[in-house]
This record gives sequence, structure tokens and C-alpha cells, in this order.
Amino acid sequence: MTTTRNDCLARDAQDPLAPLRERFDLPPGVIYLDGNSLGARPKAALARATEVIAQEWGNDLIKSWNTAGWFAMPKRLGDRLAPLVGAEGGEVVVTDTTSVNLFKALAAALHLQRPHAARKVIVTERNNFPTDIYMAEGLAGWLDRGYEVRLVDDPDAIAAAVGDDTAVLMLTHVNYRTGRQHDMAAISAMARERGALTVWDLAHSAGAVPVALHRDGADFAVGCTYKYLNGGPGAPAFIWVPRRHQHHFVQPLSGWWGHAAPFAMASAFAPTDGIGRALCGTQPIVSLAMVECGLDVFAETDMAALRAKSLALTDLFIELVETRCGKHPLGLVTPREHARRGSQVSFTHPHGYAVMQALIERGVIGDYREPEIMRFGFTPLYTSFADVWDAVTILQQILDDQAYDVTAARGAVT
Amino acid sequence: MTTTRNDCLARDAQDPLAPLRERFDLPPGVIYLDGNSLGARPKAALARATEVIAQEWGNDLIKSWNTAGWFAMPKRLGDRLAPLVGAEGGEVVVTDTTSVNLFKALAAALHLQRPHAARKVIVTERNNFPTDIYMAEGLAGWLDRGYEVRLVDDPDAIAAAVGDDTAVLMLTHVNYRTGRQHDMAAISAMARERGALTVWDLAHSAGAVPVALHRDGADFAVGCTYKYLNGGPGAPAFIWVPRRHQHHFVQPLSGWWGHAAPFAMASAFAPTDGIGRALCGTQPIVSLAMVECGLDVFAETDMAALRAKSLALTDLFIELVETRCGKHPLGLVTPREHARRGSQVSFTHPHGYAVMQALIERGVIGDYREPEIMRFGFTPLYTSFADVWDAVTILQQILDDQAYDVTAARGAVT
Repeated sequence: MTTTRNDCLARDAQDPLAPLRERFDLPPGVIYLDGNSLGARPKAALARATEVIAQEWGNDLIKSWNTAGWFAMPKRLGDRLAPLVGAEGGEVVVTDTTSVNLFKALAAALHLQRPHAARKVIVTERNNFPTDIYMAEGLAGWLDRGYEVRLVDDPDAIAAAVGDDTAVLMLTHVNYRTGRQHDMAAISAMARERGALTVWDLAHSAGAVPVALHRDGADFAVGCTYKYLNGGPGAPAFIWVPRRHQHHFVQPLSGWWGHAAPFAMASAFAPTDGIGRALCGTQPIVSLAMVECGLDVFAETDMAALRAKSLALTDLFIELVETRCGKHPLGLVTPREHARRGSQVSFTHPHGYAVMQALIERGVIGDYREPEIMRFGFTPLYTSFADVWDAVTILQQILDDQAYDVTAARGAVT
Repeated sequence: MTTTRNDCLARDAQDPLAPLRERFDLPPGVIYLDGNSLGARPKAALARATEVIAQEWGNDLIKSWNTAGWFAMPKRLGDRLAPLVGAEGGEVVVTDTTSVNLFKALAAALHLQRPHAARKVIVTERNNFPTDIYMAEGLAGWLDRGYEVRLVDDPDAIAAAVGDDTAVLMLTHVNYRTGRQHDMAAISAMARERGALTVWDLAHSAGAVPVALHRDGADFAVGCTYKYLNGGPGAPAFIWVPRRHQHHFVQPLSGWWGHAAPFAMASAFAPTDGIGRALCGTQPIVSLAMVECGLDVFAETDMAALRAKSLALTDLFIELVETRCGKHPLGLVTPREHARRGSQVSFTHPHGYAVMQALIERGVIGDYREPEIMRFGFTPLYTSFADVWDAVTILQQILDDQAYDVTAARGAVT
């Protein structure tokens, strides 16, 4: 039996997560399927920023470093984020950018592997998010010590690329373009058995799919707070260092926030115990504070419930696109198998860029990634089943009517 | 003839910068002499943050990366900041933290010096801001290649410490504790003559004293926007790379924001031409945007006028403290000579911590740094001559009455 719009409305009426949409402000007339790039704005964010700017900065001034807990915020927010990725308290800090945190993790992993002189390779995927590759290349090249980055083309060939020469296996858990999810447990076990350390990028996982860093045996992880976690544009990222590695976590960005006694103003660096040694310099407090507004929403639910709805939304989207737009040259890129799917669905179309521009003009906001890929992110916190129906209706109209401009110039694509 | 409070009021009445105080919100009853640690809040900052959060993030969502200029902000703000430090357009970006930027500059300088295998030393002062030393130690130690950090105890002995073994001379232009200003031109010339590259930290200079990076022959510089530039707590820092070094600026934090074609999603890093290669990852947009509110105020005046008032304020403070509190054991730490003074005045007192706590309780906000140093920062944008008089009046009362608690526990001092 074919799904109807009323079926979607009925599912929304029974959806226990539906009330959470009220926690977010979205512009009227928009179906926002790009939370995998920039999460929507929690309503609480503006009030929180106002409090920080007007009261904590404007009125309380310098004493807010202590009285408003500014210094403690990277660890406090890290502790709140930890359960979403299967980490423990005292193992996560929210700080710096994903790239800078990746550098810390890679640098610390290479440092741990120094006793094994033959381990000079960082293995990753050619289809990894490019900046992850760039950071590894930058580190390897600048070190000029024989380190190299090995790019694997086929996700199923990763194991074959990890061997006695491998220092680090660096992977993004859910691919930004295809939405394909790696089996963290199996890959981490394989790497560990072969003597390689794993560094996981959770940019498209944290808040999107259940992550179990400890259970799955990861070594290090970093991630982003401004996608599925709704922390705000460019909000500080996070880094996870499990307790078993913290004492040996040596990374060169050794700023005063990572010092055992930052206000003693000693001239010798002595790293603090614990996750604090992943900190470096003073953080952008207003942007950092708003991360908590996103985390507050997650506190009202759990990743199991979010995952169930995410899979239902992406299943529905795939079903509706294939039944309603089946005559058009669309290719499903994202795995159908639940265990291998993140919280997005990607389809190719020969005119993918133009079709996405037409969708955006009609209020269905997804995005486009070379080559030919239209990305649709499904954030169960604020996306309804009726949204999915309506988005596919508009996609079908555009495709049936060929209502897209294949000559449109490609601007900077975000 | 002794200065009176009326004299101070008369100077305020004639002060062309006095109206700029209206650009800032300061709590009533407070004399804020800690702008060298956290600048006061420009009134415009809250409206700007609200615009970014409500409109650009909440309503325009992902497209704001282009339409609101988020991607371009590090360079655009860098161009606005450049004239304050004697830099040219296209040479400064506002990004990341001061520590991370210092790492980029040090790493790039060491890379430039690699052909000179004997140059393995980073020279700096033991009294430099500790995190600068930590970053150099972290880089040198983690590289494990024979690099070392040489700490100079006497500021006048710096030249003697720079020689054939020196790769980099890394100095903070104005010392955070003493307020002493280095002669950038003389020191840079000395270093250049000896084959060393200079890296200058302008944390206590940018917006505080005239800086002429090009004229004075500096090689690299970094600085802070949340002190004298009033960008907000932890606002992103800046880095300056002059055009002559940009093509050879190789630093390992090679993220996608520094790529020649960030959206081509190529797997090989190809650094962009120009200052963009000092960028790495996605920036905290709300905190970054507020930096402009501080820069807007500077656009209404110039560093020569600010410097004249800064010296008049610090001269007056020294004069009044010495005449009105002369019987107390206060020691002037900051140089009397104008050319060697920043925009702060530091005095030692055997009970400096307790006296500073008493001052803060009475609304005179300075801060304390070990050992025994009371710091008073003078920001000519929002500090009046009457403020100076009133602050000294309160200091005199506290000292004359011994109205301070020498047993007070020392908490975390910011």
C-alpha cells in the first residue's frame, strides 16, 4: 500500500519527539534538510548569548572567568556531551576547531607510536572530508621525517591498507558525502590487532547516530558541535581522549589552558592530569556558551529514540523518492542497510547542482557536493514525517517539470 | 603645583576622545582598569550578536556563509585591524587563538630556518607571558629534533642571547606584568643582522600603543582582540604574515580554510596564495562578528591620539600614586620613559593581592599578578582623568586605613 501524506501526519501525531521541534526557530515555509551542515537555532541560544554579553561580559567583566564559569566551560560542556558519544566524564572537552583538535589527536597518536620506528603511515580514505586529509598531510609533510598519508579508495579495502607500517588509521565515522557509516567496532579491533591507533572524526555522527567510543574500542575522537548538535555557526569543536591514553597524551599545542597550574605563571610547561591537557588557549566564550543550548535539547531525549526516528525518516525519504521520482535518473548513494547509514540521504542526479538550487528556491534546503550529489540531512529533533512528504513533493514537481536551470553558474557551495 | 580633582575634570572636558566612552557599557560605580585583560563591552556588540544569531543563523541558515560574509570575515576583519599595527591589507587574519596563531608563526619560522641546520634555538624571555613559552616548549619538545628554548632573564640581555644558533627570537612587545615595551625596530634589526627571525606577540600592544610592524622590520606577529581591542571574551585572535614571507609560509595546521579551492574538495592540500594560508578550520562566527564592534570604535580615532591620552593617563596615575601614597611601600615596576611604557602601570606592594582585592570590592577593578604586582590598565577609549583621580583616592584610603585583609585566601586570579 502506498504511503500518503495523511500517513505521514499520523506518524507525526504519534511521534514522541515531535514536541522538540518547538525548541527550535526555523523560518516559515522552510523544510530544513541541511542540519548536517549547520544545525538549526535553538530558541534558547539568543537568550543565552544575551546573558553572556550583557551580564557576564558587560556587567561582571573580568570576574566572570570564575563567577560565570568561563574557565570551566570546555570541561563542563564536554561532560555534558560525553554520553552522546559513549564517553565518560572527564574525557571530552569542547574547544578550538575540529581541524585543530584533529591535529592534537594525530600528533599525540604519532608521538605514542614513535617507539615503533617503522610505523610511518597515516591511513585514511580518499573520500574522507578533505580537511581531515589536509591536516594529516600538513603534519606529515611539515615533520619531514618520512611520514606519509595513504589514501584508500574503496571503503571495503581499508583493512588491507593497514599493516606493520601503519601508525594511525584516521577515519570519519559517517561520510559527509555518501552518508555511509563505518563499523567502528570491527575497524577499531582490526587496527588494534595490527598495532595501529584509531582517530575517529565524529562530525556527522555526534547527535546523529549512536556512538559508543569505549565499547567499540576507539583510541581518539574529535567532532563538531555546529551540525547535528546545533551549537551555532562555527561553534567550538570537541576532542575525546579516553582515560587510558590521557597520561601519555603529548601534543605540541601546549598552551596555558592545558597547564597543571595555569595561574602560577611558571615558565616550564607541566601538563595537567586528565583531559585538560587537550586544551590550549582562551576560548570564544559567547560561541562556546551557546553550545549548551543545543545539548540541553538532547537532554530531553536519548540517542536510541533519535536513531529510531532518524532511520524512519531516511527510510521514508528513500521510499518516497524511489516511488514518486522513479522515472528520473536519480541514484541512491547512501546505504540502504541501517547499520551502514548515517542520518542523511544522498542521491546523484546528472543535474544535481541545478536541481538543488531549484529545491532551495522553493524552500527545501539541502545542499550539493561534487560530483552530482544532492545531500539531504534529517535531524529528528526538528524534522517531521510531513516535512519528508512535502520535500519529495517539491522534488517531484521540479523533476517532472524540468524546472531547474542547467546553465546556472556554480557559486561557492556550502 | 599639585594636581586636583578639578584639574582632572578640566582635562576630561578638553579631551577629544572623551565622547568615545559612550560607545561602551560599563557598570555604574566601576572604574575599570583591567581592559588589558578583558576589554569593556562596546554597546554595539549585543545588537551585532543578535543580528548574527536571530537573522543570519536562525533565519538565513546555511546560506549566510556566503550572503552574510561569514567565510570572508577572518580576512575582512584582518584588513580592518591591519592599520592599527602598521600592517597592510591582505596581511592579517582574525582567527583561532593567540596560542594557536603563535604555533603557526613559530612553526613557519622554524620551517624557513631549516636550511640552516645549526639554528636550533628559540630565544625568548623568562618573563614572557607563560603560554608563549609553553607553545615554544611544546613545539620544540614534540619535534624532538634538537630544538630548544632559551630563556633570557634580563630584558637588556636579549641581544647577547641571539647568535648563530638562533632560529627565532620570540618576544611579547609589551610585557603583560611590567608594562615594559620593547624597541621593536632595534631588536628586529639586531635579530635580522644575526640571521634570526622575529615573532612578536602584540597581545598588550594592539590598540594600546602604536605598532609599526613593517617600518620596524618584524617578521611575524600575533595578537589578541579581547584586551585593548574590546572584541569580547575569548574573541578570536589575529596573525600577521607580511607579503614578503607569505609565499614561504608553511605551517602544519593546513585545514580547508587555507586551501586554494576549499570547495573543490580535492584530496591534496594546495595552500592559497596570500594570508589565507594562515587559516585552518571553521571559525566561531558569533564571537568573531563582535570583534568588528571593537574595531568600529577605533575607526573613529587613531593610534596617535590614543597614545597621547594613554601616556597622559599613565603619567597622571604614577604622579598621583607617588604624591598621595608615597609613604606606603609601593614600587613602580613600569618604566617612566614613555618609549618603554605600554598602556598599563604596575606597582608592587608587599600585600599586593590583598590590596587589589580591597580595590575591587570598592569598584576599582585592576588585577594582580605574582609576585606582589598590582596591574592597572588604562584604556583611553573609556578611561577618564577623573577616573584616575578617583582610583588613586580609593587606593590611598585603603592603604592609609590598612583596609585590606592580608589573610585573604588567594583564589584563581584572572
